[in-house]
This record gives sequence, structure tokens and C-alpha cells, in this order.
Amino acid sequence: MSEEIILPAPADFHVHVRQGKMCELVTPQVAKGGVRTAYVMPNLVPPLTSTDAVIAYKAELERLDPSVQWLMTLYLHPEVTPEEIRKASKAGISGVKSYPRGVTTNSNSGIEDYGVYYPVFKAMEEEGMVLNLHGEVPSDAEKNISILNAEVHFLEHLKKLAGDFPNLRIVLEHATTSNAVETVLSLPSNVGCSITAHHLSLTIDEVAGQPHHFCKPLAKEPKDRFALQKVIKSGNPKFFLGSDSAPHPLSSKTPNLSQDEKNVSACAAGVYTSPILIPLVATLLDSFDALNNLQKFVSDNGRNFYKIPAEKGKELKLRRTSKPTTTTTKDEEDKAIVKGTIKGEGVEVLPFWIGKRLEWEIVN
Amino acid sequence: MSEEIILPAPADFHVHVRQGKMCELVTPQVAKGGVRTAYVMPNLVPPLTSTDAVIAYKAELERLDPSVQWLMTLYLHPEVTPEEIRKASKAGISGVKSYPRGVTTNSNSGIEDYGVYYPVFKAMEEEGMVLNLHGEVPSDAEKNISILNAEVHFLEHLKKLAGDFPNLRIVLEHATTSNAVETVLSLPSNVGCSITAHHLSLTIDEVAGQPHHFCKPLAKEPKDRFALQKVIKSGNPKFFLGSDSAPHPLSSKTPNLSQDEKNVSACAAGVYTSPILIPLVATLLDSFDALNNLQKFVSDNGRNFYKIPAEKGKELKLRRTSKPTTTTTKDEEDKAIVKGTIKGEGVEVLPFWIGKRLEWEIVN
Repeated sequence: MSEEIILPAPADFHVHVRQGKMCELVTPQVAKGGVRTAYVMPNLVPPLTSTDAVIAYKAELERLDPSVQWLMTLYLHPEVTPEEIRKASKAGISGVKSYPRGVTTNSNSGIEDYGVYYPVFKAMEEEGMVLNLHGEVPSDAEKNISILNAEVHFLEHLKKLAGDFPNLRIVLEHATTSNAVETVLSLPSNVGCSITAHHLSLTIDEVAGQPHHFCKPLAKEPKDRFALQKVIKSGNPKFFLGSDSAPHPLSSKTPNLSQDEKNVSACAAGVYTSPILIPLVATLLDSFDALNNLQKFVSDNGRNFYKIPAEKGKELKLRRTSKPTTTTTKDEEDKAIVKGTIKGEGVEVLPFWIGKRLEWEIVN
Repeated sequence: MSEEIILPAPADFHVHVRQGKMCELVTPQVAKGGVRTAYVMPNLVPPLTSTDAVIAYKAELERLDPSVQWLMTLYLHPEVTPEEIRKASKAGISGVKSYPRGVTTNSNSGIEDYGVYYPVFKAMEEEGMVLNLHGEVPSDAEKNISILNAEVHFLEHLKKLAGDFPNLRIVLEHATTSNAVETVLSLPSNVGCSITAHHLSLTIDEVAGQPHHFCKPLAKEPKDRFALQKVIKSGNPKFFLGSDSAPHPLSSKTPNLSQDEKNVSACAAGVYTSPILIPLVATLLDSFDALNNLQKFVSDNGRNFYKIPAEKGKELKLRRTSKPTTTTTKDEEDKAIVKGTIKGEGVEVLPFWIGKRLEWEIVN
């Protein structure tokens, strides 16, 4: 096996870089993780429901890190009209993101019914914009819908949208189940699917009891993880990297008892992978013998789907990490082991893979 | 609906009271929660694998709270021989608890194969002892066994044991799935089933992201919670309260970053209900219209199965909690809302139901 890999500009087609001090902290980490093109989520507070808000946000990201190609998506919302779609398209916005109401971080403005957005989807289809779907329905105990089967219940919506808009490019974001993989495979080529790094690693066993592994959609059963790995191993062009890297302050990943001791907070949903993303993805694909499809997964497939060619001169070189020699002194650390938090002004974030070894590293 | 309920001595047929400072703190809370008879788990460090160790533990609990009737169970282990069973039975030990290896707190000494224990089960059958089963198999990614389906996979073992030992009383502990309920219903009357309070309240949606709701077995889907509620509502004599109240220090319910920042701890599994147990169970049964079966669930059914009659003079009186009047001053709190931790020497534990209202309270 080769000990060096050169990738055409890697792209992350689903990333959260937040706002304020958190944005300042995490935006530069995107490039540090080896990503050259980043497709940025619009679930800020308030959500980015207008072209002007998205463009202002993009300018801020370009200021924070001009080395990255920032691609933008609007937050689907009643304010997003067909006219707004045409304006967004002219302004270079790539897509529109749909959040079912209440299912994840800052999704309280999410949608409840796709039917009312058909004119919007029609305009998107005409403009060549991409529809990004958070593929979960809200939990409903009466119907036995929980965060375990919320994605599977969503697949009917995906099928209907794909059928009703055969020329609209649609991405099922962060797929986590074998059913989702099968459904995407069964649909025409206008439907793609992003897969995160952490869902290639985690199952429910590693999530329960570990808030730093808790995200929406939840990691599911081993068979589901296996289905994600298998479809990447197949090299199928519909599947590509969208990390859903979602930083939260360390404190919000802890159940905090309120001062009046009448409440204990739940932990925020999100796994933060940006700082180590491409080395992590290489390590994971290596672990299930899919390294030969790394380029397809982190660059070619997503870029082809989004029609965003890799820029020349933006290649990323990876090499296998070296282990400390057997004559290592006690003080010498294995630098490939992920450790520590990322700290900024009044904000601290813990990356995924803490304490574990990255088998690949970026050659600077 | 009556505003007062008198229950014959309530019993909790599955409770953890730990050891050391934690034991000193939580043991008196059992009676405070309205329990007169408590069946105590043996998963200490080291596990209680001998009659002598169990009897010494029982003496310690009697010293800490002589008001409670403490019933004991041995930890199934190679040290537990048929001879030890006869000794345990003579010493008044009620049962033997089986932990599949590694599935929950202090279960590293758990068993891997039931076959080798058949002589032990035979001796238990002859002595009239009860077999308590932690009904989960260990996770195994290759076989798609995870903490989601670990209980369902265990049911084959339950069926086989029940068939092979028709006169051995067997309890499937802390059932969490509709499949488990159905299986217990399908088996003869030598098989009973304990149900916790928290599994009547939680589903996976309330567990993911909230370590204080994380326990093994994990709370499952709404349909599973509904099956537990429904069988209690039916009054079926096989089903009774076993709280699995499992205190952990507050700090171990938090993901702690190690000093070298190379590790973040997972949160301990367990939900702590003892201090509010019977009022909580009454509140829950009330919520799904099963209050008329409260006595069966918290006293009669378990006592009949274990053949432990309620002592006279140990009745528990509950009354509906009163809400603060509308003329309440700001300072007046609704005392029925659970708040705060239970604190001891160097140890602090957060009870379940924090910030929520108990609709029933104990009349002292």
C-alpha cells in the first residue's frame, strides 16, 4: 500500500462553522483539516433565510479564511420565495437546506410540509440549485416515531420529492441507515447522499453515555454503519463526504445542573471533526479497505454532483503517520494521537477521535 | 378518583445500594421513597459471589436502615457451586443474579455461557431460590448486536432456561421492549418480570444527550414504553416493580476530559429513583390510567412471585400533592417538584425526575 496519497482539492459538502466567537475559532480549522471547498450550513440564530444574509455570512467566512472556497446554502423557510431563489442563484448561492421542524440544532424555524414549497423547488430546478435535506421527521410517540427511525420515516418524502422534481438535484444529508443507502441507490442520479466521518466509526453503543458522540441523526446499528462503509467501498458516485462537523462549546456537551437545582440540561447534538477531517476520513477508509476510493469520496463524487471542479494547485498530500520508535523515551509522545481541545476567546471545543490514533496526516 | 391511596408494604425487587460512602448515602433513601422491602443487587467491587459476603453486606444494610426488609441475591460466578447454593438458601438468601459479561456496571465477572451453570440452577430449583436475569447479551458488531437489540437477542436464552427448569422461578429484570413483554406473557408462571419506573417514562429520545437518563438496558422506542405501560394496566401478575435504581456520583455522569487531554470519559449507566420511588410510580401509573393497579405493581405481584408476604403495620399512605394556590407569592415553591441532589460525605447523586412534578406524595 502506498505511504503517500495526493488528493485533488478535498471538499466537505456539509459543515457548520457557526457565528460569533465560535465562528472565529472554527472557521480556520476547516482548512487545517485538509478541506479546500466547504459547503456551509445556514442554521444560525436567526437562520439565514435571505440571499443578503447568506452573502454577508459568506463575506465573513472569506475574511476569516480566504484560502477556502466557501459554498453557501439558504435556510428553507416561508421567506424563501421563488423570487428569492432567482436572486440567490444570481448571487452564487449553491443550494437550499431543509430542516424538518425541531429535529436538530437551531431548527425551530424548520419546515413542516413540503407541498407549500413546490413553487420554490420548481424555481430551484430551473436555476440548477441543490436541495439539501436533513432527512429526519420529527419524533411522534403516538406514531412510534423516535430518533431511531426518524430517518427511515423520512425516506418516503425523499422518494416523493425525487419523483416530483426529476431535474432537481437533491442531497440526502448525513445518511445513517442501511435503508437510506438503499433508497438513494434506487433513485435516479439527481439524488445524491452525504456521509459523515463519524457515522463511519460510531454505532449506538458508542453514543449512549458519551455526549461527545451524540449528534442528529443518531448513529444507529452496526449493520447501518456497515452499509455506509460498503457503499463507499463500492465507489458509487452518488455518495460523498459531508462531515456535518458541528462544534458546540464544551460546557454544552455536559449535563449542567441549574443554580436553582430544578433543571439539568441535556447535551447539545453535534460531533466536531473539522480540525482532523481528511486525515480522519483516510484513517477510517483505510480501516475498512476503501482507501482506493478516498479520492472519489472526499473530492470527485461530491464535486461532480455539485458541478464544482477541483481547482488546480489545491491538491492535498497525505502520508502515513509514523509511530514512535521502540527506543522511545517516556517523554516522547505519539503525535498521531488526537488530544486536547480547540480554544478561542471564551469558547472551547473538543474534537472527535480524542485519544485515538490518526493513521494518516497532512504533509504541509 | 380517590385522593388517598393505602398500599400494603411496597416492595422494590431490584435496587442498587452500592458500598462505602455511597451506600451510607443511598441506603436510607430506600425507605424515604416508600419502600418496605428491597431486593438488593450484588454487583459490588468485588462482586458478592459467596454466602458469607452477601450476609455481611446484608448486616451492613440492616445497620444503616433496620426499618427495611433487605432481601439478597448472590452474583452468579464460577465460585457459586451447588453446595454454595444450599448454604445460601439456608442463610436466607433469596436468589442468584446473572450478569452477561460486560454489559453493565460492575459486570466484568459476568457469565458467558449458561450451560455450565445447569447444576447450580438445578440446586436453586430444589432450594426454591429465584434466578434474576440481566436480560441482555453482549454487543457484537459482526452479528449486528447492539445495545438496541441486546434484550431481544437475550429472549432465546430466557425461553430455553424457562423450558429446561420448569420449577425454577426466573425473573427477567428491567424489561424494556415489547418483545420482552410478549415473551414473558408466553412463558409459564415460573417466569416473572420486573419493570423500572424510568422505563415507564423514557424513550430513546429522552436518553440520547441526557446522561442522567442513560442506563442499561437503554430505554427504547415509544411502542416499547407503551407495551410496558399496557401490561401494568392489565394487572398481569407476572409483572412487578424492580426500580433498578442505580446511583452514580454526579461527576461520573459527566464526560470528563482527562488531565493529559487524551481521553474523555463516558458517562456511567444508571438512573437513580430510590428517593422518590413510590410517589414516582404512582405519578406514572396515574398518567396512563393504571392507578387502580398500583397495589398489584408495587406490592402484590412481586410479593406473590417471591413468596414474601407484606408485613402488617407496614402500609404506605399516599395522597395527591396539592398545587400552590393562585395567590402564591413568588417565594412559595411548588414542593411537589423534584429538585436538588442527594449529598453525602464526598458523594453527590442526582435523582431522576428533576424539575418535574410528583402528583403523589407519602403521608408521613
